[in-house]
Amino acid sequence: MTAALLEQYRERIQTELDRVVDFWLKYSHDKEHGGFFNCLGKDGKVYDELKYVWLQGRQVWMYSRLYRTVERFHRPEILDAAKSGAAFLQKFARVQASSGAGKCAFCLTRDGRAVKVQRTIFSECFYVMAMDELSRITQDKEMQADAESMMDRLIFWVQTDSSDLSRPQLPGDPPVNSMAVPMMLLCLVDQLTEGRTDVAEKYKDLSGWCVERIIQHIQRDGNAILENVTLTGKELPGCQGRLQNPGHALEAGWFLLEYALKKEDVQLQKTAVDKFMEIPFHTGWDKQHGGLFYFLDVDGHCPTQLEWNMKLWWPHCEALIAYLMAYSHSRAPLLLDRFKLIYDYTFSHFSDEEHGEWFGYLSRQGEVVLDFKGGPFKGFFHVPRCLYMCEKHFAFHNQDVTKCKMFL
Amino acid sequence: MTAALLEQYRERIQTELDRVVDFWLKYSHDKEHGGFFNCLGKDGKVYDELKYVWLQGRQVWMYSRLYRTVERFHRPEILDAAKSGAAFLQKFARVQASSGAGKCAFCLTRDGRAVKVQRTIFSECFYVMAMDELSRITQDKEMQADAESMMDRLIFWVQTDSSDLSRPQLPGDPPVNSMAVPMMLLCLVDQLTEGRTDVAEKYKDLSGWCVERIIQHIQRDGNAILENVTLTGKELPGCQGRLQNPGHALEAGWFLLEYALKKEDVQLQKTAVDKFMEIPFHTGWDKQHGGLFYFLDVDGHCPTQLEWNMKLWWPHCEALIAYLMAYSHSRAPLLLDRFKLIYDYTFSHFSDEEHGEWFGYLSRQGEVVLDFKGGPFKGFFHVPRCLYMCEKHFAFHNQDVTKCKMFL
Repeated sequence: MTAALLEQYRERIQTELDRVVDFWLKYSHDKEHGGFFNCLGKDGKVYDELKYVWLQGRQVWMYSRLYRTVERFHRPEILDAAKSGAAFLQKFARVQASSGAGKCAFCLTRDGRAVKVQRTIFSECFYVMAMDELSRITQDKEMQADAESMMDRLIFWVQTDSSDLSRPQLPGDPPVNSMAVPMMLLCLVDQLTEGRTDVAEKYKDLSGWCVERIIQHIQRDGNAILENVTLTGKELPGCQGRLQNPGHALEAGWFLLEYALKKEDVQLQKTAVDKFMEIPFHTGWDKQHGGLFYFLDVDGHCPTQLEWNMKLWWPHCEALIAYLMAYSHSRAPLLLDRFKLIYDYTFSHFSDEEHGEWFGYLSRQGEVVLDFKGGPFKGFFHVPRCLYMCEKHFAFHNQDVTKCKMFL
Repeated sequence: MTAALLEQYRERIQTELDRVVDFWLKYSHDKEHGGFFNCLGKDGKVYDELKYVWLQGRQVWMYSRLYRTVERFHRPEILDAAKSGAAFLQKFARVQASSGAGKCAFCLTRDGRAVKVQRTIFSECFYVMAMDELSRITQDKEMQADAESMMDRLIFWVQTDSSDLSRPQLPGDPPVNSMAVPMMLLCLVDQLTEGRTDVAEKYKDLSGWCVERIIQHIQRDGNAILENVTLTGKELPGCQGRLQNPGHALEAGWFLLEYALKKEDVQLQKTAVDKFMEIPFHTGWDKQHGGLFYFLDVDGHCPTQLEWNMKLWWPHCEALIAYLMAYSHSRAPLLLDRFKLIYDYTFSHFSDEEHGEWFGYLSRQGEVVLDFKGGPFKGFFHVPRCLYMCEKHFAFHNQDVTKCKMFL
């Protein structure tokens, strides 16, 4: 029974990944200026020409990863698209400024002029992912060095001196351990170290640091995952301190689990599942209408984010990866149940049968509220990464059960 | 018939204003540190102690205005609260920085330490409103001078050199005429010049400049009000250029109408009503569920703001003021119809019978989605200003009809 069901899931996911790749190949390439259009309507039509650096970097990474690791995507048009995106980023992403060497823009015009710069590290993070992954295919040593030097700059900003980011130091705003930062760096370490023992050695301490910082988000005697804590892992006052982001916790969960599996760290595997997968499910799943809430307040106050009760595509993507990864390595039936529930909600609500790709933003009740396929924060990333990761874990699952090293 | 109905509205609005004032008097005062708590739950309980400078300034202004101009609010506790808020702002709002003299924070801790600084002018604008209005009661010349010098700094930032705001000049982000800026400055000129001919003379050119900049937002051959245009009044590309904000257009409408009535400028009165009140109604009113949408795209694309289809309290407040002001000065039945429609939606959806004050954020279908009464952007301002302005216009309406100087 289970085997047949899993095969059915696997087939659907494979087909869906093909459709999603086709959608972006067909509609998002800017043949005139290079790079990708990000703002695509439900039918793929460009409704805004701005190019978001997070999304440009993510698309380069995703194309390259698919080209490199999935046989059916080893196609010249995919590699060419990744190269075009990387060239656009190398030419235009960096902001010319007296301070902040290496700081990348958040948003560019179609022809590459900077529109907006964020005082955070994420444009640069996706730049690193893009360049490292593509350079693994092309064997471009300069590109690989570009990725590594940007990574070193990121680490400097996070661990030593953030003044290049131009965030004013304000007396009422002490530094915060925000979940996104250690998650992102852990993801980058994973990216940069694959198959390279020398690089792994270089970043060994950093990955430990990231894991420690992520673990600090377990609060309330182990019963809550909070999005923001102090640098010493204490709860912050007010709304910021009480914020829960179930999708982000689930994403952190599979980042941690992947790391713990590699390290064969059974205790950390258990933490990843019990804390970062079970807690966000119990707090985040909407028992009335289904789907995962976007934001919640741990004390039950109403969050101040207007979109708090909306159902966004990406938390569901992260949940699918998390539960399937945990199930395929543990064979724990509860985790398969979680996967099934999320799968059913996701495929019946987000996937667009008519035009392909997924809607991103539903009301609490599950109706499509924003009908575009690409926007300032939705690109060729969470959906294909989810489908790609799930495909990979189905393949793992179908191997001999004795390979499961995880015990829960 | 109409007279009886209007009297019924007037009574409800008067009662509602009393209840709203009572709510904030009861729950928002910080007796320990001065100033006001902004984040109040549905029952008035403080759920976050942060103090938002926009809202602190607005609350000082509103208390002072009510104290000064409405007999039943001429009460010592109201004046004392305004003074406490003003003292808190004078002591803590200004950010200590090497550049940006006079720049105010956006958000402070309960005890006045800066948490966040925006690279815009609005904290400073509400600071000016607060200090000017209170100084009219206390005859505090220093406070009045403080308001005027901040105003002069604002004008310098907007018209001459904005580098104190620390917004980097980026090649893909040319300066924009955003509706908020000329609206806000026109509102401040109105505030500062009341009963002062010398000050009126000083800012005469500025008010003309503001009106011109607001008028530039009439686009598409007079059929649309767009939120952002170029400095020469041309349409901008992309989502930013196509954005419509019906509530903001309506607010601009009554600012313009008030100005045009004072100037006895019949042409501008007509523009205010035909363009800034009729157009946002036709584009913004949700024919299916009632209420005004928050954002719309003039070409019918889906806006990228996640909250685009929500019904927020403040656009409805601005609509009530706009239509009642226009009706009371014109006696045009269509404008009374508009007022009635908005009134019925507003009082049946936003006003909280149980705990007092209004909810701020409804789903498209009209359900309360965020149930707090005060939050980072909702304070003691839009609701009481709306009720206060409506009371004033009912009083005007009840005067001799021959006083109507407006012909449509």
